[in-house]
Amino acid sequence: MPVNLPLPQAADLHPVPGVRIGVVEAGVRKANRKDLTVVLVDEGASVSGVFTQNRFCAAPVQVCREHLAAGQGIRAMVINTGNANAGTGEDGLARTRASCEALAAQLGCTPAQILPFSTGVIMEPLPVDRIIAGLPVAIADAKSDHWLKAAEGIMTTDTQPKAYSTQAKVGGVTVSVTGISKGAGMIRPNMATMLGFMATDARVAPGLMAQLARDLAEGSFNRVTVDGDTSTNDSFVVIATNKAAHAEITSWDSAEGQALKAAMLQVARLCAQAIVRDGEGATKFITVQVEGGKTAEECRLVAYAIAHSPLVKTAFFASDPNLGRILAAVGYAGIADLDQTGIDLYLDDVHVAVKGGRNPAYREEDGQRVMKQSEITVRVLLGRGTASDTVWTCDFSHDYVTINADYRS
Amino acid sequence: MPVNLPLPQAADLHPVPGVRIGVVEAGVRKANRKDLTVVLVDEGASVSGVFTQNRFCAAPVQVCREHLAAGQGIRAMVINTGNANAGTGEDGLARTRASCEALAAQLGCTPAQILPFSTGVIMEPLPVDRIIAGLPVAIADAKSDHWLKAAEGIMTTDTQPKAYSTQAKVGGVTVSVTGISKGAGMIRPNMATMLGFMATDARVAPGLMAQLARDLAEGSFNRVTVDGDTSTNDSFVVIATNKAAHAEITSWDSAEGQALKAAMLQVARLCAQAIVRDGEGATKFITVQVEGGKTAEECRLVAYAIAHSPLVKTAFFASDPNLGRILAAVGYAGIADLDQTGIDLYLDDVHVAVKGGRNPAYREEDGQRVMKQSEITVRVLLGRGTASDTVWTCDFSHDYVTINADYRS
Repeated sequence: MPVNLPLPQAADLHPVPGVRIGVVEAGVRKANRKDLTVVLVDEGASVSGVFTQNRFCAAPVQVCREHLAAGQGIRAMVINTGNANAGTGEDGLARTRASCEALAAQLGCTPAQILPFSTGVIMEPLPVDRIIAGLPVAIADAKSDHWLKAAEGIMTTDTQPKAYSTQAKVGGVTVSVTGISKGAGMIRPNMATMLGFMATDARVAPGLMAQLARDLAEGSFNRVTVDGDTSTNDSFVVIATNKAAHAEITSWDSAEGQALKAAMLQVARLCAQAIVRDGEGATKFITVQVEGGKTAEECRLVAYAIAHSPLVKTAFFASDPNLGRILAAVGYAGIADLDQTGIDLYLDDVHVAVKGGRNPAYREEDGQRVMKQSEITVRVLLGRGTASDTVWTCDFSHDYVTINADYRS
Repeated sequence: MPVNLPLPQAADLHPVPGVRIGVVEAGVRKANRKDLTVVLVDEGASVSGVFTQNRFCAAPVQVCREHLAAGQGIRAMVINTGNANAGTGEDGLARTRASCEALAAQLGCTPAQILPFSTGVIMEPLPVDRIIAGLPVAIADAKSDHWLKAAEGIMTTDTQPKAYSTQAKVGGVTVSVTGISKGAGMIRPNMATMLGFMATDARVAPGLMAQLARDLAEGSFNRVTVDGDTSTNDSFVVIATNKAAHAEITSWDSAEGQALKAAMLQVARLCAQAIVRDGEGATKFITVQVEGGKTAEECRLVAYAIAHSPLVKTAFFASDPNLGRILAAVGYAGIADLDQTGIDLYLDDVHVAVKGGRNPAYREEDGQRVMKQSEITVRVLLGRGTASDTVWTCDFSHDYVTINADYRS
């Protein structure tokens, strides 16, 4: 059961002019499940992406980087679930290229105008014949109001689709921003998430797109973690179809740039947080907020140490205010000159620790009250400076073990 | 159920001339359990220790460092389980000092000749009155053949005591080496383990002792991990009582020095591995061996990334050869210029991956066969150099979650 994650409704998702989506059951791994998605993008769109920093990156990630660098203009994306095509060597690259070639031939573009994505089991051969066979059906299915269907078509261990949408006024014109994401385990994105796709019809100067993808990922997907395992396939792609009637955005510092970016960051953050809310076995949504650091980096180190600690995560699962475990994680996070007597800890509004020791006024029942909630904010004050950072995570439950012990069966 | 960890037998543990141990039920946290241990050391012994690098180190760790630095010669150790006296601020320090003062008064030495140790729950006040009340009874109980009783007296979530012993010939004289350890969770020692104590009657020049503790920890406790959580209380102490009749060891490069160190490393490693075999919820003992690195450091990075990955650990629990998860962990371990096409992976003798991809000769049933064993070696060849390193860990089971969700109740 995801944590406070309402099912998205197709009617709430704004179509983005210039983007059509088709989804089919191609039998990649299992029968009777939507597992192949094509996203068709009109000519003239600007596309950028950020990808996993895992050195064992998957074949489709390598090909995406090549094709974006080629700069021929992206016309379509092909996304399969059920198989990650990672740890598959030269053969894996060849299979990904074959799927791009097949889609390009049907669309009348070049293979370098296709971006491929895969997610699922690692180190098994991609059944590319089934994917190629499914492409004509997926193209025939393509419609602008298929965002929810796409969110369903990219799921793996996700218990529900993740899709968000908003609109913003840019230069007096209403533009749409819609995004989808997937992922529930092997989630500790580094520059991107498992899979995230966003599109807007806003007009954005092509030179601004790379910065946009990086900034959105930094403020959203790069701040969530489920289990600390950075995937081989993380990919986050941003599309601006440039269909809207406003003047082109040429700087993120302009009023129009800020309005668009705020709307896009809102959708990206909801997509990223949805991954945590639907984290494998999650029963709680935890915000870890670290303040008073010398740098944002050291705040992030501390936040991730807390967010990755199996002891902290199991205590949240048990609603047990065993809060010394949080102090222990702060202590081993890696700040060499950290002074424990400067540290305060809050659980929501409850002041648990003062200057490195238990707050004399802290009562166990107050900690207990907060720990029982489904949404909890852990606030650590380092007392060293004015920097801060925030990470979102979930707890660690029996279901995480069950899901990951049985994933392939 | 620990993994292939026979119960130690008192008769197998060599007494160490110059060391006597007393253990009592002091009611630190729970009634009817051995929870207070005193180790009495004859005058003339050399003692050194290494301690947690967690910046949130416990009060007893801070006091141990002070007392070792004072250089007055250690005469006793006082060890309680049930309460870690960590995250307790100035009050925690005062309580630890009070226990040292009480023991020193009874032994006729100075407080700086006492080393205090605590293990258990973090951020709760140490019931020092009960500890002080138990000291006379513990002293009266002191005998040289109480090593097993001490191993029992320092347990927390351990399911069984951990004690090892050997003898070595040094300069023609037989010396004894006996060690005990405890710990099952919050185990990713950094310079030491949760608690480990070793003694020998060998004669060692005092100036060699600090190096000895560091070297033994590096080859044993600093190579094991259960859950990646570095404790606030890790302490590893080495005692040489200098009672044996051989000539004093004045260099670790001498034949005598090497003989003693080898015997001590053997005991230290067994003590450290016992912690993993009895790791919280452990059902398997995993050796992660990384070879072909440019440096031992990068091999260790990779070994720990594998050993800490919740996805890898749950796959071992399930006996599921979902081995791509190991490649993913290699990829995110932090080697920036790692080339995935240079990497081979073995599971015991089974060659799983060749040059970053699945070995064409690999058969699922071979991986399955190894995964079902209770002892497994993961061998990663990085193909970058000649350095190597090894880490020992366990799997991640439902019982880990159960144990840590219920620890305080």
